[in-house]
Formats: sequence, C-alpha cells, structure tokens
Amino acid sequence: MSGVDDEQRGREEHLVRLVLDSFEGTPDPRLKELVQGVVTHLHAFLRDVRPTEAEWKQGIDALTAIGHITDERRQEFVLLSDVLGASMQTIAINNEAYADATEATVFGPFFVEDAPRVELGGDVAGSAVGQPCWVEGTVRDTGGRPVPGARLEVWEADADGFYDVQYGDDRVAGRGHLVADEEGGYRFWAVTPTPYPIPHDGPVGALLAATGRSPMRAAHLHVMVSAPGLRTLVTHVFVRGDELLASDSVFGVKESLVRDFVEQPPGTPTPDGRDLGGAAWARTRFDIVLAPGDTGDRPGGNN
Amino acid sequence: MSGVDDEQRGREEHLVRLVLDSFEGTPDPRLKELVQGVVTHLHAFLRDVRPTEAEWKQGIDALTAIGHITDERRQEFVLLSDVLGASMQTIAINNEAYADATEATVFGPFFVEDAPRVELGGDVAGSAVGQPCWVEGTVRDTGGRPVPGARLEVWEADADGFYDVQYGDDRVAGRGHLVADEEGGYRFWAVTPTPYPIPHDGPVGALLAATGRSPMRAAHLHVMVSAPGLRTLVTHVFVRGDELLASDSVFGVKESLVRDFVEQPPGTPTPDGRDLGGAAWARTRFDIVLAPGDTGDRPGGNN
Repeated sequence: MSGVDDEQRGREEHLVRLVLDSFEGTPDPRLKELVQGVVTHLHAFLRDVRPTEAEWKQGIDALTAIGHITDERRQEFVLLSDVLGASMQTIAINNEAYADATEATVFGPFFVEDAPRVELGGDVAGSAVGQPCWVEGTVRDTGGRPVPGARLEVWEADADGFYDVQYGDDRVAGRGHLVADEEGGYRFWAVTPTPYPIPHDGPVGALLAATGRSPMRAAHLHVMVSAPGLRTLVTHVFVRGDELLASDSVFGVKESLVRDFVEQPPGTPTPDGRDLGGAAWARTRFDIVLAPGDTGDRPGGNN
Repeated sequence: MSGVDDEQRGREEHLVRLVLDSFEGTPDPRLKELVQGVVTHLHAFLRDVRPTEAEWKQGIDALTAIGHITDERRQEFVLLSDVLGASMQTIAINNEAYADATEATVFGPFFVEDAPRVELGGDVAGSAVGQPCWVEGTVRDTGGRPVPGARLEVWEADADGFYDVQYGDDRVAGRGHLVADEEGGYRFWAVTPTPYPIPHDGPVGALLAATGRSPMRAAHLHVMVSAPGLRTLVTHVFVRGDELLASDSVFGVKESLVRDFVEQPPGTPTPDGRDLGGAAWARTRFDIVLAPGDTGDRPGGNN
C-alpha cells in the first residue's frame, strides 16, 4: 500500500469496519467468524494488490466462467482450490501431524461412495488398463497395534490418465474397498500409477497456461483408511523416481508418502500365483499408521 | 492460529511458499502479482479461520450455487462482491479523493450502454412509476471552471423498486443520457428515488438472511459523468432523511453525496412550466466536480 496517504488509508479502513460491523448480528457464532474472516482477508487482498476496476471485473468474469463449466460431473471450483493449494492447506490444517501416523493429502474429485468390495488379494483394476501392480501393507495404530477390520478405499486413474467416472459409461474400474485381516494386513492387485493431467480445458486450465504451470499430477494411488476410534486417513501413495514429484499441480506430494514400486521382469512369479501371461508387473508396500481420533467423518461423505 | 505448534506452522508456511513459487514463472508481471496476491491472502484466511473440511466444502458449494444462478440477466458474483463491500473497496482504491471533486460510489449491475439521449429539461422516467422529481446542477472541474458538453448518464429504479432491465420486456425507462450546456449546467425530470432490495432470492440473499442482514439499498439515483481530460465519475445521489442511509446493503453511501429532495405541494409551479396535473413533486440540486485525469475509461464499458 505504498503511496497511500493517511486520509485514503483511513477511508479504506473505515469501509472494512463498516462491513465487519454489518455481520455483527450473525446468530451462529461460527458462521460469523467465517464470514468476518472472509471480509478481513478479502479486503486485505484488495488493499494490498489494488486491482483496477477492470481487473476486478476480470476476476468476476473468471468466477462466472468457473461456475458455468461446473456441473454434476465436473467441479471446477474444487480444481481451482486444488491448483491454488487451498485444498492441501485445508488438509494440513485438519490433519495436524500426530506422532508417527501416516500423513494425509488431498482428497480429489474422483472418489465414489459405495465402491465394490474386493477380497484381500483381489484385483481393483477391473477393466482399467495398465501394468499390474501388487500392493500390500498393514494398518496399525500409533502404539504399533494392528487394526483388524480396518476399511480401505482405493481408487486410481488408468494408464491413459482417466478415472472410471471419466469414461462416459457406467463401468467401475480402478476402485474398490477392502477390509484388513486379523493382523491388520491387506493386499490387492491394481495398476502401477502413472502421471495424468487434471482437467485443463476450462478456466482453471487457462489460468495454469497463463501462469506457465503444468496441469500434470504426480503418479499416485488414492487410499482412504477408517476404523472405529481412529482418525480417518485420506492419502496417496506416490511412486519414487517420478519426475513430477517436485511439481505436482495440486501440491499433494509429501516425501513420507513416496514408495518404491519395484519392477518385476516378465515371468517373475506373483505373490499369489496369479498368471499374468508372462507380463511384467510391479510391487510396492505401504504400511499405514492411523492416529487416535473419532471416525466416520469422511471428507467426501456428508454435506 | 493459537494452539498451532511450530512444526505445524512450519508445515503450513512451507505449503504457502510452494504455491507462491509455482507462479514464479508467470510471464506477465501484473498477472503474477495478482495471482500471488490471491494465494497469499487466501492461505492467510485459511490459516486464520481454520475451516474444517466440511466447511471448506460448504464454501465450494456456495460458489457453485452462485455460478449456477448467474446468467446474462443476473450477476450473483457482483452481488456477492457488493454485499461483502469488495465492490466499494475497489471503487475506493481506484478513486482516491481529489481536492473537492465529487466522491465516487458503486457502479451496480443495472447500467445499460447506449441509453437514449434526453434533452436538457426532458424526462428520463418514461414509463417508470414514481413521484416526479426535478434534478438540476452544474458540472465543473476542481478549478471551478464549467465543463460544457459533459456527458451525464443517469439511471434509477422505479417506485416499485425495479429497473427497466428487470421488467421482462424491452421498455427503456428511468434511464438516459444528457449533455451539459455551455455553462456546464444540466436539468431533467426523473422520479424521486425510493429504497429497494437487491435481488435476494438466491445464494447471496441466503447469506444475508443467515447473517441477519437486510437486502435493502438506500434510495438513490445513479449518475456517471465524463468529459475529455477529466476523471470519469461514477456516483449516486442519496436522499436526506432516508432511514437506510446507515445500513445500505452494498455500503455505497457517502455523506457528501446526500442531498435534500424538497417536497413540493400539489399545484406548485414547475421550473419549466410542465403541467403535472396538480400532483406533488420534488426537486433537488446536485453540483458535480470532476477531478483531473484521462477519460473514456468507464467501469462498465470495456472488457
């Protein structure tokens, strides 16, 4: 706000005060806090960056375009939140690190409720194309105790970069839920995660292009783990060696979530004797530690 | 951010840094400044108010609803900007007070390009219902020199609270443009401004209801004045005595813009001999002072 004299500063601060006061009568205290927070930081932005009236109108027009492309199948506001790091910051705020518990990352727009149950050792890939990949691990609490019966939801894009919900038909592929065994162990076949772009043919894609940013996400497999009395974990497994780890378009990468996906030459025997017809495959291990906390509060689930 | 330990604070700050860095390669320096400003203040909001994941989703849902009600005839994002005082703050930032120049206020969504020319002394009301009101004044620069030929655009709601663009037909009423005479003088018939609510049957109306705020605007007449070599003025004339002056829903009121609208008993002779059939009427005077500056840059006009 260099170059702003005291009189002008006073005028701007007076307006902020007026707007804050207008929300003083909000009956719900949390809503009041949220709305007054919006006012405080929105006005701080305006007074800091000092948009021209034409620039402010461009912002309004951008939000309008984002609103118009958003529908039942596409949530461009979530994409905007993702590429501005707001989704990850919300995750960070609500999932403060706890002891050695596995870290959380972004939920993303591609989760589907009621994905089919897959037995331990089964295949979540279905018709999703890609290299077969064996994923195994255990679910424990921060005391090291196994969590038998923990529920794992897993979902991922295929090797062409698409989730099943983007196929345009009703196929379910690359997703499922599993239940950990008595030792908290789990295992399943999937496809080796590969990088893909977030949808970038809309206003958010235009923003990325104008700012010289890539829409590519680092390769990952989504995992959500819940169990009674423990904090629900929403996270990814990332692939060591992926060049996009340092430039993930939604800032989802955490070093602690990167794993070796070990390539197995064609013909290597599989852990469960499955016959892959001589194809190459990969395997990884992802041991999960859940923090204490209540359960059932899943980000995509309610309201 | 009380209760946030150093490690958590470091994690949150690291994320902000990552996001800011991702925009470092933005080719256009002003776009870079705007986008990094958005990031800085958006993350400050999140870290200050600390929304739950459910609350953040409610925010996304609200923006989605605002996007879906917005169309060619209704701009709900502008309404949101208005009720949060962001429109007025942008006006304040771009129209710093200059000497005794007339103050600016909010543009609003109801301006129409190419409103019909009305001769001095003519009637801008057309079919708009309301009490006849004689408006007159002069346009001068800050040196006190008349501005002959200054162009005045005027527009207002009728006594039922509607602008012509809300009628649902193609009538033009309650709007027009005039050209000041050789002494910078202007005069016209209109209707006496009355309070009306901003459109409040959508998400912004829901926000106002939930926060105990009224959608009512203080009574006003819109005036936009432009002339070569002078700063274009976008302002309102408000009505002294209006109970809503202190609680205008878009924070547009400035004391310097409030005028007496003097009631004239039925039968009082009119300034131009117009026969009002014995009806009561009102009159006001609004002398306008334009600051130096370039012209032609009208907020609603381009991009």
